[in-house]
Amino acid sequence: MGVELVAKARAGNRRALARLITLVEAGDAQAQTALAALYPYTGHAHIVGVTGAPGTGKSTLVTQLALHWRSLGRTVAVLAVDPTSPFSGGAILGDRIRMQSLGGDSGCYIRSMASRGSLGGLSRATGDAVKVLDAAGFDIVIVETVGAGQAEVEIAREAHSVVVVEVPGMGDDIQAIKAGILEIADVFVVNKADREGVERTVRQLQMMLHLGSGEHRDGWEPPIVQTVSNTGKNIAEAAAAVERHFEHLKNNNLLELRERERIEREWKMIMRESLLRQLLQRLEPQQYEQLLNHMAERQLDPYAAAKQAIETVLELS
Amino acid sequence: MGVELVAKARAGNRRALARLITLVEAGDAQAQTALAALYPYTGHAHIVGVTGAPGTGKSTLVTQLALHWRSLGRTVAVLAVDPTSPFSGGAILGDRIRMQSLGGDSGCYIRSMASRGSLGGLSRATGDAVKVLDAAGFDIVIVETVGAGQAEVEIAREAHSVVVVEVPGMGDDIQAIKAGILEIADVFVVNKADREGVERTVRQLQMMLHLGSGEHRDGWEPPIVQTVSNTGKNIAEAAAAVERHFEHLKNNNLLELRERERIEREWKMIMRESLLRQLLQRLEPQQYEQLLNHMAERQLDPYAAAKQAIETVLELS
Repeated sequence: MGVELVAKARAGNRRALARLITLVEAGDAQAQTALAALYPYTGHAHIVGVTGAPGTGKSTLVTQLALHWRSLGRTVAVLAVDPTSPFSGGAILGDRIRMQSLGGDSGCYIRSMASRGSLGGLSRATGDAVKVLDAAGFDIVIVETVGAGQAEVEIAREAHSVVVVEVPGMGDDIQAIKAGILEIADVFVVNKADREGVERTVRQLQMMLHLGSGEHRDGWEPPIVQTVSNTGKNIAEAAAAVERHFEHLKNNNLLELRERERIEREWKMIMRESLLRQLLQRLEPQQYEQLLNHMAERQLDPYAAAKQAIETVLELS
Repeated sequence: MGVELVAKARAGNRRALARLITLVEAGDAQAQTALAALYPYTGHAHIVGVTGAPGTGKSTLVTQLALHWRSLGRTVAVLAVDPTSPFSGGAILGDRIRMQSLGGDSGCYIRSMASRGSLGGLSRATGDAVKVLDAAGFDIVIVETVGAGQAEVEIAREAHSVVVVEVPGMGDDIQAIKAGILEIADVFVVNKADREGVERTVRQLQMMLHLGSGEHRDGWEPPIVQTVSNTGKNIAEAAAAVERHFEHLKNNNLLELRERERIEREWKMIMRESLLRQLLQRLEPQQYEQLLNHMAERQLDPYAAAKQAIETVLELS
């Protein structure tokens, strides 16, 4: 089923694309067949991560960026990733509002990804959904994360170009400092730049950038672009900054390096999960319960229990 | 070395305690020997998680809670966990300020834990540091997380009782909704309750609690306590609410259940990491590079590469 869906999705069939993403989200054997079929077509899209605290206007900014790139004839997919509880429903709501401005366009695709119970699960599912969109032929895939916690940072940093969104006057300090996202930014956007205090925010960011280390990641100094996403002001400048960063990566052989590192991390994550699954399959339920009981009774520490479980299985095979 | 340190730390030697935490933070073979030695002494402390957005006054609240419990003759350890970049240095600064009010007391111990590069690493190190403090005989171990992202939530939820701190007027909405921490709260503290808008915040929380599901986790309805941590107002009430929650867990056999689930998660995490380490040790560097090259060239997808790597190693053993 996966192989057929891949062909259809690549031919522009939106329903097949949606089903394919649902399929890979599940992360089961079927998902892996589909991913194997589409993997040869990946590696062409520009993956753009957009992150920032709630209230910075990220969603509107992403919509505006998508509209801008569409106006230049480029195809754009947006993955809105929400690691927060399904209780908030934010991603779904935001998705619906945006569908109104972008939904009718066949060169644009929007999809929300909600929390899957664990960080690792969401990270894996997002990475696999990006592969689907990449293989489907989108020029640009935007991964937008709700919030600016460590989880969002870990997801956003898997992109080629990371946009960090700030706004003037959200408390005394730049939000990004607390969230530890200054280091991963390739482009800063100070959104809602028609608000009071914008100069102060820009100055703080500049200071921060120069305090940071003296030299920037990959020899690239992150530009600071002031936008008003509600009116579209400087959206073209923000988009151009993101594209310049991608060119910088390509011209300095950094794209290949980043991709290689990303693939390596992903591969290790998959091996970790797969090994544990195989271990648990081979452990007798009785033995599993016994080890757990011994730990709960403080007779055995978790490291020693892990060692015992692994040794049993390695003898088996 | 670990065994000696454990004996000394349990006898009240603060320097041994500090060295022991540093030792287990490293997560190496020595750390495991130490943890095996101290594990039999764990399982007695009440682990209290405190989380909430930056600016809610968490640190002052935690200091006040610690002073209150000390005044009742209970020993208290505080782990201040900061998953943000070392760039901010917040944990270290906060630590120093608090040492002034609590530092001279032998029944109290404060320690900061900074980011260890990855979520998994910090989570693991925090869990192991809690074991040290538990084994050292502290009655209450407070795990305070900076920020309210998913990472902080995952760390805080490993506690027996989770305190979520809010303040009036931080934007239109309760911060906890965005961060997905409403569900894990056992006690809500609305701090800075002398500020305008406190009634609105309390009302929003109440509404949220009743909207949530109708029934609460473990049959416990999270109380909402209004405090002013700067003046100490209602600190005793907040502490009492936390203690009532612990009694509730004990009286309903829920403590054992929570502990068992926590141990199971921890055990799996350790097995996952250990299995990957053993796999990578057995893979020939040549083969590792070859698989990575094939993935980078899109000839092989990461799931297939993981399967190949694992099959090679399982044949070996």
